[in-house]
Amino acid sequence: MKKKLFNKVCIFGVGLIGGSIGMAIKKNGLANEVIGIGRNIVKLKKAVLVGAVDTVTTDYIAGVKDADLIILSMHINSSIEAAKKIAPFLKKDTVVTDVESTKELFCEKMQKILPDGIHFVGAHPIAGLERHGVDVATHRLFAGSVCVITRTSKINKNALLKVERLWNKVGADVVFCSPSQHDKLVAFTSHLPHIAAVSLVNALGKTNAIDKDLKLVVGNGFRDTTRIASSSSEMWQEICITNKKNLLGSLSKLQKELDKMYKLIDGSDDKKLIKEFEKARSIKNILE
Amino acid sequence: MKKKLFNKVCIFGVGLIGGSIGMAIKKNGLANEVIGIGRNIVKLKKAVLVGAVDTVTTDYIAGVKDADLIILSMHINSSIEAAKKIAPFLKKDTVVTDVESTKELFCEKMQKILPDGIHFVGAHPIAGLERHGVDVATHRLFAGSVCVITRTSKINKNALLKVERLWNKVGADVVFCSPSQHDKLVAFTSHLPHIAAVSLVNALGKTNAIDKDLKLVVGNGFRDTTRIASSSSEMWQEICITNKKNLLGSLSKLQKELDKMYKLIDGSDDKKLIKEFEKARSIKNILE
Repeated sequence: MKKKLFNKVCIFGVGLIGGSIGMAIKKNGLANEVIGIGRNIVKLKKAVLVGAVDTVTTDYIAGVKDADLIILSMHINSSIEAAKKIAPFLKKDTVVTDVESTKELFCEKMQKILPDGIHFVGAHPIAGLERHGVDVATHRLFAGSVCVITRTSKINKNALLKVERLWNKVGADVVFCSPSQHDKLVAFTSHLPHIAAVSLVNALGKTNAIDKDLKLVVGNGFRDTTRIASSSSEMWQEICITNKKNLLGSLSKLQKELDKMYKLIDGSDDKKLIKEFEKARSIKNILE
Repeated sequence: MKKKLFNKVCIFGVGLIGGSIGMAIKKNGLANEVIGIGRNIVKLKKAVLVGAVDTVTTDYIAGVKDADLIILSMHINSSIEAAKKIAPFLKKDTVVTDVESTKELFCEKMQKILPDGIHFVGAHPIAGLERHGVDVATHRLFAGSVCVITRTSKINKNALLKVERLWNKVGADVVFCSPSQHDKLVAFTSHLPHIAAVSLVNALGKTNAIDKDLKLVVGNGFRDTTRIASSSSEMWQEICITNKKNLLGSLSKLQKELDKMYKLIDGSDDKKLIKEFEKARSIKNILE
């Protein structure tokens, strides 16, 4: 029988992402054993029920025994806590990876927490932001998606190759960049749009206009622009704080653009307004 | 044979909206004749080819002869110009309606332009913002959509009833409000989200980061938030100017929300950040 990519995989946190990775690993025969680890036994049992993992435990240290791949897919702070707890109990050459939305601070933490001989490879699959929970997990979640893998100077080449292969096998296109490049990019493509959407909705909340008429008039435009990811508020708070510098930089650029639009509309500057709309469309076209 | 709702319908501007109305009127047998009127004979001929209208002309005055319903569905300024040209040539009790995205200024203009005995009823079907052109027109465009009809004190009840019946027959739910109420609502639900999306894209354009990596990393979140309507820049410029007061009011509320978020992130105020995310979700839940 062909040797599998991993022997024992431990997934910390079996929500949509963790659960889907488990399913995809099992579906593609990438490991002999997949174990779900977390704090909430009800959620863990559900993960077994839907076939996301083979077994589960709330005992972090017993759970990671003999594991050769650890996937941290809890909220950022919980994943850091989990790494601290399990670090002394991991066997040599265990690969530790993650799925966190911000990478610079997280990768730094992992370098400090994990001892020599344990190889960390940061990853961020860009998928599934709009739903959550293992109930909606699917082995196809990453098919055709993009997974960013962060490459650092100290990275273990063999571990990197294994994590890349894992994401390729579950159907993702892998993009490599440094943790800081990643955080700069996602500040613009994910975090800033979320802050803008939240602010739009909260501005609307200030109008005392939320009645049945407004509800009917809410067009697709508004729904698209303000689709608030069902991912938790705590997750977004962590993202904001762990990507503070880049997010504030991009937010300040957005504020400048809005100030400009305010002035152009206020001054009825038709030609410059049209130019701004044209510019946006040409940038958008480049991106699609 | 049952009398039809209208005898001769003239549609000024046969793009997605005008063309779809034509198709829906024909499909539902709401008129004996549907004529498309505009400036571009190539576009007009296409409208005949796809079955949006029966005949077409670029001669505004000849076109409206004996019409009992005029639908203005060009850009705002062009619709106003068309109304000025045809006003002296309309027969008594002709109903004039429109599909414009802003209503207060437009309704005022129509009151001034149209002589006594010609009945204006403002309408704004909320549909189809993301595509344009008669090629994508369909008689089903308004099925399940909402159409706002603006009610003023001077409105002719019979004309109002006919326009309401037209929109009901093509599948839309009709909501009534005053022109100024309409403009206040759409400033928040449509115009502000568009300005925010344009500004987000233009802020991104300032980063010099638009390369293949960025393109790959652009997640669904960004795509949804910045889906720039393919409707023309000129249309949006007109919308901004004709709804200036409300749009600037809502834009200034958005700017305040973004300032607040900036401060909370900058100050790492975890609890208040979470509160803002929770607030947005609860407002969003009310709206859906």
